[in-house]
Amino acid sequence: MIVTIIGVGLIGGSLALSLKQQGLAARVIGVDRSPENLRKAQDLGLIDKAHKDLAAAVAPADLVVVAVPMDAMLTVLPAVLDLVTERQVVIDVGSTKAALLAAVQAHPRRARFVAVHPMAGTEYSGPEAAVPELFAGRTLVICDAAGSAPDALQLVETLFHQLPMRLVHLAAADHDVHTAYVSHISHITSFALALTVLEKEKEEQRIFELASGGFASTVRLAKSSPAMWVPIFRQNRLNVLDVLDEHLHQLQRMRELLQQEDYAAFAALIEQANHIRRIIK
Amino acid sequence: MIVTIIGVGLIGGSLALSLKQQGLAARVIGVDRSPENLRKAQDLGLIDKAHKDLAAAVAPADLVVVAVPMDAMLTVLPAVLDLVTERQVVIDVGSTKAALLAAVQAHPRRARFVAVHPMAGTEYSGPEAAVPELFAGRTLVICDAAGSAPDALQLVETLFHQLPMRLVHLAAADHDVHTAYVSHISHITSFALALTVLEKEKEEQRIFELASGGFASTVRLAKSSPAMWVPIFRQNRLNVLDVLDEHLHQLQRMRELLQQEDYAAFAALIEQANHIRRIIK
Repeated sequence: MIVTIIGVGLIGGSLALSLKQQGLAARVIGVDRSPENLRKAQDLGLIDKAHKDLAAAVAPADLVVVAVPMDAMLTVLPAVLDLVTERQVVIDVGSTKAALLAAVQAHPRRARFVAVHPMAGTEYSGPEAAVPELFAGRTLVICDAAGSAPDALQLVETLFHQLPMRLVHLAAADHDVHTAYVSHISHITSFALALTVLEKEKEEQRIFELASGGFASTVRLAKSSPAMWVPIFRQNRLNVLDVLDEHLHQLQRMRELLQQEDYAAFAALIEQANHIRRIIK
Repeated sequence: MIVTIIGVGLIGGSLALSLKQQGLAARVIGVDRSPENLRKAQDLGLIDKAHKDLAAAVAPADLVVVAVPMDAMLTVLPAVLDLVTERQVVIDVGSTKAALLAAVQAHPRRARFVAVHPMAGTEYSGPEAAVPELFAGRTLVICDAAGSAPDALQLVETLFHQLPMRLVHLAAADHDVHTAYVSHISHITSFALALTVLEKEKEEQRIFELASGGFASTVRLAKSSPAMWVPIFRQNRLNVLDVLDEHLHQLQRMRELLQQEDYAAFAALIEQANHIRRIIK
C-alpha cells in the first residue's frame, strides 16, 4: 500500500514509522508546508519521498493521512477530498471532530473519508518527535462512521487493528465532549500550573533542584505547542469552557475547605478523588 | 550502622531498602502503629526486626528515621528525641518543615536532630509501595542545619550522599514556600482534576478507553493518600493557599481569553508556559 502523509510531525511521522515497521506501507510519501520538516522527515526515514505539490502527492496514494493542526485541517481535508478518486481512502488524525465533520458533510467525496483520532501523543512536536511505538496498545476513536463507505471503513479498521490499536466508535459530538475531559482539560491545567510556578517562583534553579517526579508529571504537558493546541481549544471551545468551569469549581471547593480549616471535609474530597484509581492503573 | 525506622511505609520502607542495598545499614529495626504494616515490612525484607515498643527500638540505633505522616510527626519526633543519647542521630523525612522545627526548637536534644526532605515519592503508600531506587539521583533538602550538631549533620550528609542524592540546604520557611510550588500545588490540581472528571464523566468505561498518557500523567497524583496529604496541606496552609490563588488566577485568565475568543493572547500564554522546558527536561 502507498500511504501519503500530509504533515510529517509527531503524529504523521509516528504513523509513518508504525505503518512501515508493521509492513503495512510499502511506500510513504510526505507533504509538509515546511521544507525543513520535509527534509528532516526524509533524513529520519519517516518518508520515502517528499513532495511539495499536493495533487502529485495524493495521486498515487491508496491511503491519504491528513495530520496537520486543526485550523489547517479545515481547509486541507476538503482540498484533499477534491483530489481523490473512488478507489482512495482519506483519514484525519485530529483531536476535535464536530467542526471538521461539519466542514466536509456535503463534500461529494465524504464517503472516502474516515474520521479517526488515535488517543496517543507526547508533549513534543515536529518530525524529530516521531516514534514508532506511539500507537501500539492505545485506543483509536472512529467518528460518524456511517458517513464513510464500507470499503473505506474496512481498510482503516483493518490497518489500525494491526498496529495494534483498540477501536472505539463514537459520534463526533460525543468524541468532543469526552476528549475535553480526558485530554483537553489536562493541557489547560498543565499550562496554568507552569504559568503559576514561572510567575511566582523566580528562583528557577530552586525549581530545577527541588522538582520531583510528581511536579514533572503534572507540568510536562505545558511543553506542548500552541500551534497544535490553540486550534483544538478553539474548535472545542464550548466543551472545554464547560469542563474548565467544573474544574475551577472543584479547585474553589478545595480552597474554601483549606481556608476554613475543615480538614475532615478536605480529606473526604481527596478520598473521592482517589476513586480515579478504578480507572487509571 | 543500626538504623531504626519509625513508619515503614513508602518513604521509610524505601529508605530501608536503599540503605541496605548500598551496604550502609547492617541492621534495620522497624516500628509502626499498624501491626499489619510491620508484618508486611518484615515479610518484604524492608526490616530485619519489628518492634512495638518505641524505647526498645530506639535504644540500639545509631540513626533513627521518623517517617510518619506530618500530623503524627509533631508528637513522634519529640518523643524520639526524649529517648536518644548524645551518640545517636535522628532525622525526619517530612514534606513540611516550619511547624516541625518550631515544635522541637527548645528540645534539649535538638542538636541530635537533622531535618531532611528527600524530594522523591510516588502516588502509592504503605510497605508494599517501597522501592529501593526511589532516592538515587534525587535531591535531599536539609533544613536549618545550624541547629544540628556538626557530627550529626556530617553523618546524615555522608549517608545520603552515598545513596547517591544531591544535597541542598534551605531555611525551613523557604523550604515550605518552594515545596508549595514544586509539589503541594501539583497534588491539589491533580485531586481537583480527578474530581472534575469523576463528577461529570459518568461513563467511566469511556474514560478508561480514551484516557491517553497525558491524562494519566496529570491525574496520577490524585491516587495519593489523604492520611499523608491532609496534614501536609494543614501545616503548609498559608503557602498552599497563596500558590492556589495564583493558580486560580492563571486558570481564570485562560478561561477569559477562551471565552472572549482572544486566541492570539491565548497562544501567547501557552508560549509563556512553554518556558517550563528550560527547567523540566
